[in-house]
Amino acid sequence: MPDVVTFGEIMLRLTSPGHLRLVQAPHFEITLGGAEANVAVMIAQLGGSAGYVTRLPANDVAQRAINELRGYGVDTNFIVRAGNRIGIYFLEQGASQRAGKVIYDRAHSAIAEAQPGEFPWDKIFAGAKWFHWSGITPALSVSAAKVTGEAIAAARRMGLAVSFDLNYRAKLWENPEQAGEVLSPLMKGVHLCVTSIEEAQSVFGIDVAAGEGPRGTETARQLCEKFGFESVALTQRQGATANATSWGAMFFHEGQSYFSPRHEISVVDRVGAGDSFSGALIFALLRGDGAQKAIDFAVAASTLKHTVPGDYNLVSLAEIEALAAGAGGGRVQR
Amino acid sequence: MPDVVTFGEIMLRLTSPGHLRLVQAPHFEITLGGAEANVAVMIAQLGGSAGYVTRLPANDVAQRAINELRGYGVDTNFIVRAGNRIGIYFLEQGASQRAGKVIYDRAHSAIAEAQPGEFPWDKIFAGAKWFHWSGITPALSVSAAKVTGEAIAAARRMGLAVSFDLNYRAKLWENPEQAGEVLSPLMKGVHLCVTSIEEAQSVFGIDVAAGEGPRGTETARQLCEKFGFESVALTQRQGATANATSWGAMFFHEGQSYFSPRHEISVVDRVGAGDSFSGALIFALLRGDGAQKAIDFAVAASTLKHTVPGDYNLVSLAEIEALAAGAGGGRVQR
Amino acid sequence: MPDVVTFGEIMLRLTSPGHLRLVQAPHFEITLGGAEANVAVMIAQLGGSAGYVTRLPANDVAQRAINELRGYGVDTNFIVRAGNRIGIYFLEQGASQRAGKVIYDRAHSAIAEAQPGEFPWDKIFAGAKWFHWSGITPALSVSAAKVTGEAIAAARRMGLAVSFDLNYRAKLWENPEQAGEVLSPLMKGVHLCVTSIEEAQSVFGIDVAAGEGPRGTETARQLCEKFGFESVALTQRQGATANATSWGAMFFHEGQSYFSPRHEISVVDRVGAGDSFSGALIFALLRGDGAQKAIDFAVAASTLKHTVPGDYNLVSLAEIEALAAGAGGGRVQR
Amino acid sequence: MPDVVTFGEIMLRLTSPGHLRLVQAPHFEITLGGAEANVAVMIAQLGGSAGYVTRLPANDVAQRAINELRGYGVDTNFIVRAGNRIGIYFLEQGASQRAGKVIYDRAHSAIAEAQPGEFPWDKIFAGAKWFHWSGITPALSVSAAKVTGEAIAAARRMGLAVSFDLNYRAKLWENPEQAGEVLSPLMKGVHLCVTSIEEAQSVFGIDVAAGEGPRGTETARQLCEKFGFESVALTQRQGATANATSWGAMFFHEGQSYFSPRHEISVVDRVGAGDSFSGALIFALLRGDGAQKAIDFAVAASTLKHTVPGDYNLVSLAEIEALAAGAGGGRVQR
Amino acid sequence: MPDVVTFGEIMLRLTSPGHLRLVQAPHFEITLGGAEANVAVMIAQLGGSAGYVTRLPANDVAQRAINELRGYGVDTNFIVRAGNRIGIYFLEQGASQRAGKVIYDRAHSAIAEAQPGEFPWDKIFAGAKWFHWSGITPALSVSAAKVTGEAIAAARRMGLAVSFDLNYRAKLWENPEQAGEVLSPLMKGVHLCVTSIEEAQSVFGIDVAAGEGPRGTETARQLCEKFGFESVALTQRQGATANATSWGAMFFHEGQSYFSPRHEISVVDRVGAGDSFSGALIFALLRGDGAQKAIDFAVAASTLKHTVPGDYNLVSLAEIEALAAGAGGGRVQR
Amino acid sequence: MPDVVTFGEIMLRLTSPGHLRLVQAPHFEITLGGAEANVAVMIAQLGGSAGYVTRLPANDVAQRAINELRGYGVDTNFIVRAGNRIGIYFLEQGASQRAGKVIYDRAHSAIAEAQPGEFPWDKIFAGAKWFHWSGITPALSVSAAKVTGEAIAAARRMGLAVSFDLNYRAKLWENPEQAGEVLSPLMKGVHLCVTSIEEAQSVFGIDVAAGEGPRGTETARQLCEKFGFESVALTQRQGATANATSWGAMFFHEGQSYFSPRHEISVVDRVGAGDSFSGALIFALLRGDGAQKAIDFAVAASTLKHTVPGDYNLVSLAEIEALAAGAGGGRVQR
Repeated sequence: MPDVVTFGEIMLRLTSPGHLRLVQAPHFEITLGGAEANVAVMIAQLGGSAGYVTRLPANDVAQRAINELRGYGVDTNFIVRAGNRIGIYFLEQGASQRAGKVIYDRAHSAIAEAQPGEFPWDKIFAGAKWFHWSGITPALSVSAAKVTGEAIAAARRMGLAVSFDLNYRAKLWENPEQAGEVLSPLMKGVHLCVTSIEEAQSVFGIDVAAGEGPRGTETARQLCEKFGFESVALTQRQGATANATSWGAMFFHEGQSYFSPRHEISVVDRVGAGDSFSGALIFALLRGDGAQKAIDFAVAASTLKHTVPGDYNLVSLAEIEALAAGAGGGRVQR
Repeated sequence: MPDVVTFGEIMLRLTSPGHLRLVQAPHFEITLGGAEANVAVMIAQLGGSAGYVTRLPANDVAQRAINELRGYGVDTNFIVRAGNRIGIYFLEQGASQRAGKVIYDRAHSAIAEAQPGEFPWDKIFAGAKWFHWSGITPALSVSAAKVTGEAIAAARRMGLAVSFDLNYRAKLWENPEQAGEVLSPLMKGVHLCVTSIEEAQSVFGIDVAAGEGPRGTETARQLCEKFGFESVALTQRQGATANATSWGAMFFHEGQSYFSPRHEISVVDRVGAGDSFSGALIFALLRGDGAQKAIDFAVAASTLKHTVPGDYNLVSLAEIEALAAGAGGGRVQR
Repeated sequence: MPDVVTFGEIMLRLTSPGHLRLVQAPHFEITLGGAEANVAVMIAQLGGSAGYVTRLPANDVAQRAINELRGYGVDTNFIVRAGNRIGIYFLEQGASQRAGKVIYDRAHSAIAEAQPGEFPWDKIFAGAKWFHWSGITPALSVSAAKVTGEAIAAARRMGLAVSFDLNYRAKLWENPEQAGEVLSPLMKGVHLCVTSIEEAQSVFGIDVAAGEGPRGTETARQLCEKFGFESVALTQRQGATANATSWGAMFFHEGQSYFSPRHEISVVDRVGAGDSFSGALIFALLRGDGAQKAIDFAVAASTLKHTVPGDYNLVSLAEIEALAAGAGGGRVQR
Repeated sequence: MPDVVTFGEIMLRLTSPGHLRLVQAPHFEITLGGAEANVAVMIAQLGGSAGYVTRLPANDVAQRAINELRGYGVDTNFIVRAGNRIGIYFLEQGASQRAGKVIYDRAHSAIAEAQPGEFPWDKIFAGAKWFHWSGITPALSVSAAKVTGEAIAAARRMGLAVSFDLNYRAKLWENPEQAGEVLSPLMKGVHLCVTSIEEAQSVFGIDVAAGEGPRGTETARQLCEKFGFESVALTQRQGATANATSWGAMFFHEGQSYFSPRHEISVVDRVGAGDSFSGALIFALLRGDGAQKAIDFAVAASTLKHTVPGDYNLVSLAEIEALAAGAGGGRVQR
Repeated sequence: MPDVVTFGEIMLRLTSPGHLRLVQAPHFEITLGGAEANVAVMIAQLGGSAGYVTRLPANDVAQRAINELRGYGVDTNFIVRAGNRIGIYFLEQGASQRAGKVIYDRAHSAIAEAQPGEFPWDKIFAGAKWFHWSGITPALSVSAAKVTGEAIAAARRMGLAVSFDLNYRAKLWENPEQAGEVLSPLMKGVHLCVTSIEEAQSVFGIDVAAGEGPRGTETARQLCEKFGFESVALTQRQGATANATSWGAMFFHEGQSYFSPRHEISVVDRVGAGDSFSGALIFALLRGDGAQKAIDFAVAASTLKHTVPGDYNLVSLAEIEALAAGAGGGRVQR
Repeated sequence: MPDVVTFGEIMLRLTSPGHLRLVQAPHFEITLGGAEANVAVMIAQLGGSAGYVTRLPANDVAQRAINELRGYGVDTNFIVRAGNRIGIYFLEQGASQRAGKVIYDRAHSAIAEAQPGEFPWDKIFAGAKWFHWSGITPALSVSAAKVTGEAIAAARRMGLAVSFDLNYRAKLWENPEQAGEVLSPLMKGVHLCVTSIEEAQSVFGIDVAAGEGPRGTETARQLCEKFGFESVALTQRQGATANATSWGAMFFHEGQSYFSPRHEISVVDRVGAGDSFSGALIFALLRGDGAQKAIDFAVAASTLKHTVPGDYNLVSLAEIEALAAGAGGGRVQR
């Protein structure tokens, strides 16, 4: 039984190669990913024990998702094989002033059509310590939101720690307010919330004025107050172009804020960076890292994710710890 | 205004490269196609005038379909931009004893959700001479079947010749009988029916015993009798492996049967062969070829299709006529 | 009939993949392009109406050029099919201190061998509003220069606006002076001239000292005075390496200069950037944008071109307007 | 605990793409495989329970082997991570009169340097039913032969069925006689021997004259007599070119011979065909198939292997059973 | 100084990948070749000593030709660097009934514009034993024909054996008669002529009726009589599709005919097969093989060429001798 | 006979494409290289005369190394064909904070198993002027170190200039001290030493405190004093990420230091940069450049190497001299 269970949608990602636009590409590169699967792979990659739960049709394309997850050491035994299609997203990497672009083709996916009662949560969570989910799943459909609620309730009942990544996707919700309405009732039972100042404001209405002192700390404080979270992690991305980003985070725990260093990143693939942050944070907390060490580790992990093509953060524990300890990439290792 | 209008679904085709299975491919090759679009491209490729009507969402992936059709000279002015997704099919080419395999992901496509009244058939058919459709479109949804009926009625009303390719797809119908029930009412108004002995039997119940003299002729005769067709074209494929096929056809016209020679083909890509047959047959009839010349031309055209990757038959009039006149492929042309 | 007609040479572009040098590449990526075709595609891409005129041989390689232009919505009905070859250029993208490199193999191309009288300019320009040409075409051959003169005269006679992009290519002329001698007589009839301070100086001898106040304005003023242009657009590129460039422009109109903001660009493919500038400027002026809005739009369009592989600027109106309005590429759009 | 355990060497396979020779290829396609790993994947692919044991260094290239095996559902928990390198083989596919070609670079691999005592056979075999090994492993080194003997002894002691595939490789032995000397002592404890008439003769000296009645049956009978095998399976390949082969087998069990039908195959990749035969035969016998059904199933499985690139036979139970039941590959399944 | 010198045109070959047509290919695969360069590579590949003479521009694309020839061991020291372009040919491989197709873009190439006096034939031939040329070079231009004549005269004067491959290319001559007129005066000085019955008839008017006994022998006899050849080699290709060919040859020497066995070939790339025949024949004769052995060797060599992508026959002496001795390609060599 | 002879190990380099990690790549790009071969190619690329000596097995993979070296104009006549394998290294390019990574698989390579007496140094050095070797070769094995000593002694005896590049590789030595012990005895006979301040300190114990004035000059002075070098070149790399580096060097000659300008580089492939520095320095010194000109030239050459994929610096003399003279890469050359 894995220590950490994540639940959500995994999609076929079809990426145009290099800097080609979707209308130009002669082929699409095939990878797979989804916010919660990405978290599970991050944990398994670090040597942690992770399982992933979703619903996938019984066809060869969906089988790729399972094969790859198993290959990276994620437990897939509780994936339900049912439904008609795996969700798809088309991705075009950005460059300079041109932003990366996603076209979702995920409606009617197997997980979006999941119904309450299909997942044996008691078996799934038996022996597990942590449940992670994100704000994407309840956005997929009313029934997917219900299944998510089911899972949270079971996890809580069985004593698991519960983490939640808001992951607001403008193309899945009518507007941030709708997201707030659907997600708020699910916050009960969440111990750790991963989000950003901007999301907290637009989705949950946490209104901390831009000029108001330590905005992150105040945002996190209000989130904890409003929803009863034990901890809040706020990631902060900055940067005006598709090629370069500045990345850092704050961890709010027991009333205190811990700030990571910021990393200036030359971006290869930023999809999944936030997920690798959540995964590495969970891993670090589970192994008992203190707040400062955990946030530094999670930010180092997700910094490296920006250099790896695909959703998954295929870096090693040693590589992350070296970066967290101050190493850079300036030399070929030979 | 194009001479020939075709109507149906065009899909994004994602093919695993070479002989790789869908679970192995590192990328999917991107082409586009669909039975009726393939017919339109065949006609345009021959120098004929063809337009294609469908419904496609306003996104970059669907835009590829339009760009490519325009590129090959097909009129796309009446494609309706609406709906949520373009249908997709995953294709794995077969080899030897392993059959080619298609996974459809076409439910909820823009054209499947088309509603009667969305297409201005009177404008579309103004000045046109021929309307071609296939049995795939009515299989997509009840509303798509209705729209097809609308189109046939308008074409008939406006004096166009109407051709129909049965194109039975087991994965789209519950069973052949269901196809027969849906398609039969649409047969009124069809002048030319393209099918095979096997389809005529399973879908329309034309029961000509295997041993019974000239089966093709008798099948065609009964089809004409039952539905009032003026002509029937029956294609005949034989061959036990994915690599090799034998291909020929019969054309039944004014009570008489005309048989093409058979071609023994080393297969590159057999998808769209039947469609190129229909397109070339329409082209030949429209330019006034006699029955024997037309069927020989259509079979030569579709023989060459088997050698071209993708759904479209990107060969020239000269190449087809050379093959119809007896040339082979034994020498490099230099 | 398209609103804008452009005329010139389209070439087969053979690019070594990635950063490989021409001697290393296992294959050449195939795109097509040429200064004036690039302008036509930019306009069509924006939703404008554009046609392209050239001379191409009747072979499959040249057919690709036509198919692609049609695919992007450019009218190709007046392309003359004659001659023996399509021009070719080999391209190697630069990197850091290594400059991009072009090897022209365009001598004896179909358009270089075009003769006066081959193009029905009266038909071509019937109903059109704007004619665009560049300084490359007269460099191809004496007869190509004559045909260009023919076109300009016809456009002027028929009341079209005429724009001209100097596009000095050192490998096509003996020296800048020769270019000046050939091009100067063709300037009569040009309304809008697109060039740079450096080109104006070397080719047309507009000698504005480096220290002399607003050099751009003075250069534009002297160009208008010398040749009777109504407007002049001056693009300005800066940057010492192949990877990074700074890009901006000035528009001189009715005696006044309008300056765009500058964009710092991480370069994917800079070929065709100037052409997309001309195309977007024409589009903006035709739709009635004011001078400031037009130059901002054209610079935003051409900034984005630097991020798109190939000669063509396959970006949308919305993307350009977002950048002109201040957006960057810092987030994946999902 | 898996039902079937296989043990041997898995290698990085570097294949030149298409028909390119090794001196021409711009890149090598990466797959992994080895006789015994191929058997394990075949069984897992069929839904059986298989584990694979080997020794691999702790580097990223070897990690690919483990990831892929896990991905296909093979238990890799007892792979020992030690040693300096994973074996490599370069492969060039043949064509027509040009034979496929293998260059081994497998000396000093981790498994070749394995020492007795490194593998906890009692744990590995706990709960297992079947142990499979091949004649390749003892050819790798003296110590690898010893470890193989260790495994056979443990399997025998713990009551597992033991199968052995001779797999004579001319490049690994000095001559067939040497192979016979090393392998003969290991035959004690083997229940099922997979080989061919030719191998049985050259390696084990089973001398059945070509003209002598049913050669296969007599060869099998003598093998059983000499080594105490319960069953012998003899595969038979025929065919003079790299593209086409004829494939069939005989199963000798309880004194009786069962012959499969022969399949005429158009070859995509013949490497691993024999291994898929062994895997499918073990699977069939374990599920209780009778001798005739088992041999037909194993031959159908390995026939399909010839159509799948890479060492692994990525076909499904349903596909194999369809072929065993007489289906061909003549139609695209849609 | 190499033993064998060949002279002619080497071209950049741009091939669409797989079975894609030229209008479909996303990239062109780059190889180089030309009849006489192919002969030189064949000889060097066999361990012989060969040099190649041509005229190439001083650019990176032409440099590839030199690098590759040097890489395969051909002496390139007498290649003249001058002129404006390297000739290009676009190639599309055929399939089944669709023939392979070549588009030449070789006019105005450096070698076509070569002038008499540019090549120091006395230096080039110093120490050489054999000069080989083909009927392509005199087809390129009047001056190229003159240079060829110069070379033949020098070779004759310096006592080299001279071989000639007719290599009739319909796209380079107005008609076969024109070829005959240009080539006939050059025949004086040729010792070995390589051609086919069909070419001998159409180009040289050797009219041996189809029914007339041993046509090859009679054709060869008349050729020797007419032109004073010492030997004639006639290749014979048969086969109606692009995929399959039957290949054999006859060698006429000292009044006697020697026939090779015929090989039934599954074709990968037939371009250059005839050139490898000439190269292997020259190699065999130079090392002193008898007529029968030489023709068998040359046919085995050129049979294998059909399996190697590109113009060059990258097979080894051992592989050819194995095939000549009766081996096939039925087994992977491992 | 070449002017410069280099000796060492050439390896098959298998690189994962783009930014893919080794565990992700579907294929490995194939190049070849090794420190001393890279030096030889640099010299040949500049028009110098260079030969390369190593030991390689007689197989197709090793043959690629020879073909490519010959192709680039390097003399390979003294490469010994013996041994069992060519060394391999797997390379993953770094990105941003993720460093490039090399996995060596070079143990037991043909050159590592070379024995004294196998190379005919007197013949090899006959007529040569310069011998270059690096600190990698003695790291390969005790016998390789002995062969290196043999070569140095012969070169010295025959009056060649000898240059040495320290090239410390952590993965080949137990620690820097061991390298120092093995290399120090070989320093006698070296005229030019190429290294860095860091290497000089760790390997040779040259201890110049960080704060101590001109560290480079002092390091070089002490090296000359300790080992009797005539000149020392110190390269200096700076930069914290895999994408960007700052590169410069110092040349110490006749007691005086000459400093190159520094170049800020956007990195494509940094492997082989130091080797191209050595090659260009040798070339410059051999043609008689003064110290300042030589160091500027060598740094410009190696700056450009960072932009070329693969180990070899495939740039031209003209490109290097243009950069040394101050040109950048800011414009496409057309």
